[in-house]
Amino acid sequence: MDVRGYIEEHRGEFVAALKEWVAIPSVSADPDHRGDVRRSAEWLRDRLADTGFPTAEIWETGGMPAVFAEWPAAHPGAPVVLVYGHHDVQPARVADGWDTDPFAAEEHGDRLTGRGASDDKGQVLFHALGVEAGLAASGASAPPVTLRMLVEGEEESGSPHFAALLERNRDRLACDVAVISDTTMWSAEVPSMCVGMRGLTDCEITVTGPDTDVHSGSFGGAVPNPARVLAGLLAGLHDDRGRVAVPGFYDGVAEISDEERALLAKLPFDEAEWLRTAGSPVAAGEEGYSVLERLWVRPTAEINGMWSGHTGAGTKTIVPRSAHAKVSFRLVPGQEPAHVQERVRAFVADRVPAELGAEVAFGGPGVRACASDIGSTAVRAARSAMEEAFGTEVLFTREGGSGPEADIADILGAPLVFLAAGLDEDRIHAPNEKVEVPLLLKGAESAAYLWNRLGARREP
Amino acid sequence: MDVRGYIEEHRGEFVAALKEWVAIPSVSADPDHRGDVRRSAEWLRDRLADTGFPTAEIWETGGMPAVFAEWPAAHPGAPVVLVYGHHDVQPARVADGWDTDPFAAEEHGDRLTGRGASDDKGQVLFHALGVEAGLAASGASAPPVTLRMLVEGEEESGSPHFAALLERNRDRLACDVAVISDTTMWSAEVPSMCVGMRGLTDCEITVTGPDTDVHSGSFGGAVPNPARVLAGLLAGLHDDRGRVAVPGFYDGVAEISDEERALLAKLPFDEAEWLRTAGSPVAAGEEGYSVLERLWVRPTAEINGMWSGHTGAGTKTIVPRSAHAKVSFRLVPGQEPAHVQERVRAFVADRVPAELGAEVAFGGPGVRACASDIGSTAVRAARSAMEEAFGTEVLFTREGGSGPEADIADILGAPLVFLAAGLDEDRIHAPNEKVEVPLLLKGAESAAYLWNRLGARREP
Repeated sequence: MDVRGYIEEHRGEFVAALKEWVAIPSVSADPDHRGDVRRSAEWLRDRLADTGFPTAEIWETGGMPAVFAEWPAAHPGAPVVLVYGHHDVQPARVADGWDTDPFAAEEHGDRLTGRGASDDKGQVLFHALGVEAGLAASGASAPPVTLRMLVEGEEESGSPHFAALLERNRDRLACDVAVISDTTMWSAEVPSMCVGMRGLTDCEITVTGPDTDVHSGSFGGAVPNPARVLAGLLAGLHDDRGRVAVPGFYDGVAEISDEERALLAKLPFDEAEWLRTAGSPVAAGEEGYSVLERLWVRPTAEINGMWSGHTGAGTKTIVPRSAHAKVSFRLVPGQEPAHVQERVRAFVADRVPAELGAEVAFGGPGVRACASDIGSTAVRAARSAMEEAFGTEVLFTREGGSGPEADIADILGAPLVFLAAGLDEDRIHAPNEKVEVPLLLKGAESAAYLWNRLGARREP
Repeated sequence: MDVRGYIEEHRGEFVAALKEWVAIPSVSADPDHRGDVRRSAEWLRDRLADTGFPTAEIWETGGMPAVFAEWPAAHPGAPVVLVYGHHDVQPARVADGWDTDPFAAEEHGDRLTGRGASDDKGQVLFHALGVEAGLAASGASAPPVTLRMLVEGEEESGSPHFAALLERNRDRLACDVAVISDTTMWSAEVPSMCVGMRGLTDCEITVTGPDTDVHSGSFGGAVPNPARVLAGLLAGLHDDRGRVAVPGFYDGVAEISDEERALLAKLPFDEAEWLRTAGSPVAAGEEGYSVLERLWVRPTAEINGMWSGHTGAGTKTIVPRSAHAKVSFRLVPGQEPAHVQERVRAFVADRVPAELGAEVAFGGPGVRACASDIGSTAVRAARSAMEEAFGTEVLFTREGGSGPEADIADILGAPLVFLAAGLDEDRIHAPNEKVEVPLLLKGAESAAYLWNRLGARREP
C-alpha cells in the first residue's frame, strides 16, 4: 500500500484521535487549565509512543510541560529532523460566539470544528500519521530520517520558557533541519509553504518636560511641550517614502531575491479583498514594495499606542508634564534586535533636546526574524514533497508576525522549513476555529514524502 | 482731608467689611453653595447702597446672580465708567492644605488670608472705599464720572451666562470705558497695569484608520496608522522657528508696539526664577520674542492631550483604529477665533490623506483676545492715577490666559482699562489665598484719582 492509500484508509482513526485530543482544553493562558495542559501533554506522549516512537517523554519547563519524542533512523548516517509544534491552545468559551462547544469537536463533511483543530493539534498529529504511512508503504521498521519532535505547551502564552528549554537540551535536540508545523498555507487551492517570519522588538518612549502639568495660559508658548516633542519624534520615524528614518535601522537587511519575489507575485492576492479583511480604507507603506512584500519581507516601525496630558472629556488647558508612546519594530532576516534597539535609542537621544528627559525602555531583548533559504536542499525537498502530495505547484509565503521559531534557528543552529496545512481562514484565535481534514491528510502525506527525500540524501 | 488720608483712616472698617464678605463661601462651582453665592450678592448690594450708590440691584442671570450698581455723576456730560469684578470664589477646604479656615479671614500684619481676599472680593471692595474717599476729599455729593459696577457671580465657573447678561442689559451698561479689577500687578515693589489678555479656542482632533485595532504582525506596514498620521499633523503645527505653521493663523495679528515692548523689557524678569515656578528645565518658544512676549503678546498652539491605541501596561502589537489630540490655541488681539478655527480645519484636511477620517471638533466659538490701547486717554489716565497713588513708575504687563473681559469689549464696544491691586503671589485658586491690605488701599486711592482725571476731561 502506498503512502496516500494508507492515509486515506486511516482517516477515521486520525479524526477520532484528534477529537479526543481537542476535548482536552489545554488553555495555557488560564491557570484553571494547568491540569488540562498536563493531560494534553500526557495524551500526546502516549499517542506518539503508540505510533512507535521508542522515546516519548514529558519535559518540564518551569511552566507548562512540553512533549519530546524520538525515533532513530534505520541508518545511523541519516539526517536528523526536529519537528516543532505546540499542544496548548487559545482560550475559548461558547459565550465568545462559538456555534458549538469548542472542546467537543464536530465533523461536518471535510471540516472539523474545535479549539486547536488547526492551531496546532491537527498539525502536530498529522506527523504521527505521516510517519506511520511512510513505514507502512516502505515496510521498514524505522523512518528514513531520525525524527525528533518537540511540542511545547506555552506557545499561546508567548513561550516564556522555550528558549531555556532549548538551551538545556541542546544535545538531544540537535538536528540537521527543523520542520515547523504551525503556520498556514495561502488557500486550499493554492498550497504554499512559509519561508520566513518577521522578528520584533518593542519599546516605550517617554519624554518629560515640566515637573507637573502647567497652565497653558500662564506658561504656554514659553516652556517646551513634551507632547509636541514626542509628536515630532514619532512623525520623524518615517520618511516621505514610507521608509523607517532611524539611521542604521536597515543595517544588514536581506533584500528579497528575484526568485522569491517572482514567486510571491504569483500568489493570487486581491488587494480589495485584503483591505476588507483589514477593515482599512486604503493600503499604505513603503514605496517600491507590494502589499505582501511590505507585510512579509520589509521591516517596519509602528506606533501601537500613545498618550499625554488630558485625555478625558472637555478641555484642560495645560502643557502636559510628559508624553508616552509604545512603538514596535518588525524585523526581517539580517537585522539584529540589539542593534536596532541601540539605533532607536540614539535616534531618540538625537531628537529630544538634552534639557528634556527622554527614556526608551525595551520590553526585552527582542525576537530575531527567521527565514528559510529557498535555495537550500531542505526547502527544495519540502516543496517537492508538498507538490507530490498536492499535485500542483507549491508557492512561497511568509508571515508578518513572530514566534518562537527564531529561537530554534538561533539556539540549535538549524535551518528552518515550514511544513503546514492550516489556512488563514481557519479562525485560529477566534470563535469557531476549524480545520479542513483533507489538508491535514495532505500534510501527513507531505511529511512522509519529505522524510523519504531527506533520508535518500545520505546515499550518493 | 485728602483721598489718601481718608483711606488710611478707614482702613479698619474696610478690612472688617472684607472679612465679613469673605465669610460668605460664595463658591459658584459647588451647587451646595448656591445660597451662599446669593447671600454674597445681597451683601454686596447692601454694601454699595450703604456707600451711597443710588441704584444697587441683584441681576438674575439664569445661573448665579450678579450685582449692578450705579451712581450718576454730578455733571450730566461726565464720562460713564463701568467697573467689572466678580463676587464668586474658587472652592476651598481646609483639607486642601489651608493653614487656617479659608472663610474666616485672618489679618497678620499687612496680610489678610482667606478665599476671595484677593480674587476678587478685595479688588471689588476697594472701589467702594475709593469712591467714598474721592467724595470726602472733594466735598461733592456725586462722583466726577457716572460710575456703574457690574459684579458677576459665575466668573470662577467660566461665566456661562455673562455674555447674555451683557446683551440683555446693553443700554444700562453702556460706558465710555470699562475698568476691569480682576488681574494682578508685577509685584508690590513694581506696580503695573495689565494691558491685554490672550484669547482662546480649543479643539479635539480625531484621525481614524482601520475599522478596528488590527494586528501589527498581520497588517503592520501595509495599512495607514492613524497615530502616525496624527503625530505628523501635530509635529507640523509648528515650524523650526517655533511659529505656528497653520497657514493663515497669524492673519490680523497685531504686533506689539515699540513703546510697549520697551516697557515690558523694563520689568525685572528673572528667567531662572520663572523656570523654577514653571518647574521647567528650559524655556522654549517662538524665535525673536522674549519669554514674556511669548506668554503675553504672541499666539500659540499647544497640545493639551493626546491618546491612541494601547496605553496600558505591557505590549499590544496593534495598528490602532484611531488617534486623538486636544489642541488649544491662545489668541492675541487682531485674531478672530472663527477664522483661526476655519484655518485649523483646513490645515487638518490638507494634512490627513482623504481616505482616512479626520474630524476637528471645537469646544465652542472661542474667546477673542482683549487689549487696552496704551496710547489711549483712558490708559494714560489710569497709569497716571496709579503713579500718583504708588509714587513710582507704573509698568505694563499682560496676561497669558483669557477671561470674560473680551465679552465686555466686544458687546459693549468699550475700551478696557485694567486697574488691579492683586499679586501673582496671592495664591488665588490655591490654598492660603491672601492679599496685601496696603495694596488694596492703593487700589482704592488709584480709583479715586482715576475718576477725578476722567471726570476732569469734560472741561476744556
